[in-house]
Amino acid sequence: MKIIKQNILDFEKLYRAAFVNSLSGFKSANLIGTISLKGKINLAIFSSVIHVGANPPLMGFLMRPVSVERHTYTNIKEINHFTINHINKEIFKQAHQTSARYERNISEFEACQLTPEYTETIKAPYVKESKIKVGLKFLEEQKIKSNGTMFIIGEIQEIILPDDATLTDGYVDIEKAGTIAISGLDSYHETKRISRLSYAKPGIKPKEI
Amino acid sequence: MKIIKQNILDFEKLYRAAFVNSLSGFKSANLIGTISLKGKINLAIFSSVIHVGANPPLMGFLMRPVSVERHTYTNIKEINHFTINHINKEIFKQAHQTSARYERNISEFEACQLTPEYTETIKAPYVKESKIKVGLKFLEEQKIKSNGTMFIIGEIQEIILPDDATLTDGYVDIEKAGTIAISGLDSYHETKRISRLSYAKPGIKPKEI
Repeated sequence: MKIIKQNILDFEKLYRAAFVNSLSGFKSANLIGTISLKGKINLAIFSSVIHVGANPPLMGFLMRPVSVERHTYTNIKEINHFTINHINKEIFKQAHQTSARYERNISEFEACQLTPEYTETIKAPYVKESKIKVGLKFLEEQKIKSNGTMFIIGEIQEIILPDDATLTDGYVDIEKAGTIAISGLDSYHETKRISRLSYAKPGIKPKEI
Repeated sequence: MKIIKQNILDFEKLYRAAFVNSLSGFKSANLIGTISLKGKINLAIFSSVIHVGANPPLMGFLMRPVSVERHTYTNIKEINHFTINHINKEIFKQAHQTSARYERNISEFEACQLTPEYTETIKAPYVKESKIKVGLKFLEEQKIKSNGTMFIIGEIQEIILPDDATLTDGYVDIEKAGTIAISGLDSYHETKRISRLSYAKPGIKPKEI
């Protein structure tokens, strides 16, 4: 069937949000940890984290407009550091619960039963229960004019991951580490590898590696 | 184990690309279809497509710097339309093969054995073999200063999807439609739903829905 733009505009608000959020495909499942100047820690689930570049090593994510106070945004701008923590099957319910509208003086770590963990390099809390964690320095923000969302870019400062997660060619087996995926606003998915494929060249069929 | 920024900078180039590309979590798997002013069609795999907003309905994706000629970018700027087509298990090898460096006068549709399909609304080819397809109008581009990549934003004009894909609350069951996920540069994954969770509210545990 075909849905056109006017159909979407006519949808009821929550129906529209669920529908359009499903259209981009599977999404990354991460918790972003931050701390305020006053030392209050914050944790929030994001499904918009993407790879931005390898050299320098950059990651980015999209935030909704900051007209409503966004604790994650405020903290990143105050402290310049944040952490990205992969969500796994053991913690997806706690991770989902961080999306509830807690007051700024409430720590989602405590409210959602997740454990903050620190390193000397990053002034922001990691999630102890996460298996793959990245500490970043805020670099840049780009405002999307069309709807006021912000694309936030950070430079990777350190990565904490299982000893056996990285394969000989640099690929990190995030499936083996238990990382899950999101679709829409609220659906959580385990994965099963179909295969890895060799570097594509014109005229040569890709091989399973 | 811990990897620090200097380790990443010291990695061999391909190892570094594989490593850093794995850190954001699972990625969407899409083919972007475009056409040039001269009528040459192009198809390219992207793992960076994300949801940008529901009202207006927006999607975005990140492109590498345009110093190297990027056919997708050039075509979008010439024609203002593009299509986003979900990759499923039946076509993931052909989809991967579109990443080979074909000359501009070669159609990846033909070279990779995928079928172009058109509607009256969008001046760009869809992928017939894809089950969920979105036609967009180019709206805006934001250059990431840190590495010269471009974040491209389009407004959804139409969606073609299976009759039974959309559930009663607007959520589209992309897993049932066969959409797959990517990790790193070259790993393709099927998914298995763990569960959907109810809208999170402070003090109330999320329920499976």
